[in-house]
Amino acid sequence: MKKTGVALLGLGVVGSGTYKIIVGQREKIKKIYGIDLSVEHILERDKSKAEALGISPSIVSTDIENILKNDDIKIVAEFFGGIEPAKTFLIKCLLKGKSVVTSNKELVCKHFKELEHAAKKGGAGLYFEASCVGGVPIIRTLTDAMQANDIKEIKGIINGTTNYILSSMSNDGIDYADALKTAQRLGYAEADPTADTDGYDAAYKLSILSSLAYDKHIPLECVYREGINKITAEDIAIGKEFGMTLKLLGISKNTDGKIEARVHPAFIDDNHPLASVKGSFNAVHLAGSNVGDIMLYGRGAGDLPTGSAIVSDIIFAAGKTTHRRFGFVDERVKRSDLISDFSSEYYIRMRVKDKAGTLSKISGIFGKFGVSITTVLQTPPTDANGDASLIFITHMTKEKAISAAIETIKKSDCVGEVCNVIRVER
Amino acid sequence: MKKTGVALLGLGVVGSGTYKIIVGQREKIKKIYGIDLSVEHILERDKSKAEALGISPSIVSTDIENILKNDDIKIVAEFFGGIEPAKTFLIKCLLKGKSVVTSNKELVCKHFKELEHAAKKGGAGLYFEASCVGGVPIIRTLTDAMQANDIKEIKGIINGTTNYILSSMSNDGIDYADALKTAQRLGYAEADPTADTDGYDAAYKLSILSSLAYDKHIPLECVYREGINKITAEDIAIGKEFGMTLKLLGISKNTDGKIEARVHPAFIDDNHPLASVKGSFNAVHLAGSNVGDIMLYGRGAGDLPTGSAIVSDIIFAAGKTTHRRFGFVDERVKRSDLISDFSSEYYIRMRVKDKAGTLSKISGIFGKFGVSITTVLQTPPTDANGDASLIFITHMTKEKAISAAIETIKKSDCVGEVCNVIRVER
Repeated sequence: MKKTGVALLGLGVVGSGTYKIIVGQREKIKKIYGIDLSVEHILERDKSKAEALGISPSIVSTDIENILKNDDIKIVAEFFGGIEPAKTFLIKCLLKGKSVVTSNKELVCKHFKELEHAAKKGGAGLYFEASCVGGVPIIRTLTDAMQANDIKEIKGIINGTTNYILSSMSNDGIDYADALKTAQRLGYAEADPTADTDGYDAAYKLSILSSLAYDKHIPLECVYREGINKITAEDIAIGKEFGMTLKLLGISKNTDGKIEARVHPAFIDDNHPLASVKGSFNAVHLAGSNVGDIMLYGRGAGDLPTGSAIVSDIIFAAGKTTHRRFGFVDERVKRSDLISDFSSEYYIRMRVKDKAGTLSKISGIFGKFGVSITTVLQTPPTDANGDASLIFITHMTKEKAISAAIETIKKSDCVGEVCNVIRVER
Repeated sequence: MKKTGVALLGLGVVGSGTYKIIVGQREKIKKIYGIDLSVEHILERDKSKAEALGISPSIVSTDIENILKNDDIKIVAEFFGGIEPAKTFLIKCLLKGKSVVTSNKELVCKHFKELEHAAKKGGAGLYFEASCVGGVPIIRTLTDAMQANDIKEIKGIINGTTNYILSSMSNDGIDYADALKTAQRLGYAEADPTADTDGYDAAYKLSILSSLAYDKHIPLECVYREGINKITAEDIAIGKEFGMTLKLLGISKNTDGKIEARVHPAFIDDNHPLASVKGSFNAVHLAGSNVGDIMLYGRGAGDLPTGSAIVSDIIFAAGKTTHRRFGFVDERVKRSDLISDFSSEYYIRMRVKDKAGTLSKISGIFGKFGVSITTVLQTPPTDANGDASLIFITHMTKEKAISAAIETIKKSDCVGEVCNVIRVER
């Protein structure tokens, strides 16, 4: 059996996990798939990381040329993260005909076109299952199981950090800042958590998944994005009373060619399948024109779950003589096909003066803007100002209508503050 | 673009669904996958079925020779069901180098070895994603996404008919016979429902999935099987009081090379992810050594969901120059590696004499056989005999211990009847 040479760029958490899996599963992969994976070179500055894994120093360096000039290396797996030097290195590898496997969602999202063009030119494969929802085979499902479907919708919990924080807030009744601190202490959130908490990570993934699903490039700037840092324990507690759970969702839809893509916190019904996805788990719901609804659930991050997806891609790439080309990178979604005025139900919490006529006045403003209300909850004054808390849940309404209504409500003299506006997805 | 000729054996529900998908998705599949699928011949006795789909009678016949002699036909999709003539026809096609795609779980389960040997000899591919859990890409996940894992467990709801019946019994408080009748009227159950209700259909699927997962042939006779026809509305109602839902589960485990595989009704906790899988939906949970827990959820049957999996396999097969071989068909699981004395928790319901000492006596028998009890519920006499109802839930215990204890309890003079014994899976 001929060896398939593999190079690893970086031996961080996922790089090390991948190395362990390749070594540990080598015999099984040989037996079942007839592919003998052999790590031929590793780029890593920190020699101690290689040493800890018992890797010979002779195959560890910091020079990409050692990989480019080695014709035995057919597949390069990248773990640097970020844009540079990953982008420059991977483009060089692709042009040399070496297939690339990566979990780098930021790079794939922002530079899909350059990578794919280099891959096409070099006759190499570009594989990135691990970039979206870690070990969950969401890309394989889209590209190798749902080929015979028009994909109509993607809806999911695609960021583990925010799901962990929101789950803690819900379970322990704690506020955002405290939940974030705990997540950072336990390693679920970075020191600078904004890539996760502001929804960038989820937006990268949604851009990639939507592009694959709708066969049109949906770049990052076409994904509406809103983070979780304005969510309070009070909102989550009130949601619970209404039988709803708060999640950061990535949602995209293709309605007869009209595309919308958005990442934002949303309330969902407690009995929605996504409501039971707790902690750092992820889940994605896909709607296909023929297969109907499919849901996939699993670990969205971690050394071995992500390494599992990386090695799966390596085996998948090694077994191919020709690789799939992503024609859509040259077909950007048209501005006229993008929906930005989303429809949703809304939860609106405000502080209001506790006096006669307030409810009528505010309801009147909603009505004026065509916003129809399903539920109102008014709680007696508890704060120092003697303000009451007023919560509305609307029927399905356009974003523009809600925004206009709220701008007017804010100016009303009976309203102290509009505390939060959160979408409700059924 | 060269056409890929496809033949369909049968134009029943799934065959017709597949035809519709191939025609409807043809342009999209050409554009994205570079594969032009063209239906070149159909075997079908009932000409009106072809007519209803606008298919030219010139490509419809009942003679397999029309397919065998046509070198343009590269892929044959089978929808006959059952063993013959499907088996004979497909082996002929495979020997001729034509790849086979099928949803025929009984055939794949019982004759995997002959089919694979013919495929190997003919250099053809053998694809059967649609045979297990319809449109849910469970086989693709095992073979093309979890390659870098030792699979440790499969646990799932893999039969829609029984899940529909058990969901009705639970929702409407009706008994098995009534729920079955409704399912038959609505087309969820066959006139002769035993393939589903006795667990055969689930056992076929579990045999196929377990063989793939553990890379050893686990034939049908190695799968323990128990149907749902002894389940009563009373058991389901009592389970509810304990916070448990009743499901027909397919479970298999590979514990350091020791294999167990079983299909039987089981109570699971209401908050178990499988508990919320209602009606005709299916879901499968897979545990991998690296990726951890994955769950897939979707429609396990139906014309378009199953057709979606069939066409996915056709595209997958059409894109391959060499096909995966299933070496395990020659490596049957050793008898010594099969676990038949399963461990489980148990729910036991019995009618007992309502007199002092009964509980102590029965508990004593359980204790004698090493069966430890977690929960007891005794309800006052309601039946004509003045017997009380006594329900036990045990700790984890071996099947042999439970069977021996129950045999002894049945002989006890204080026991009227052991009404039901149902496993509890956490």
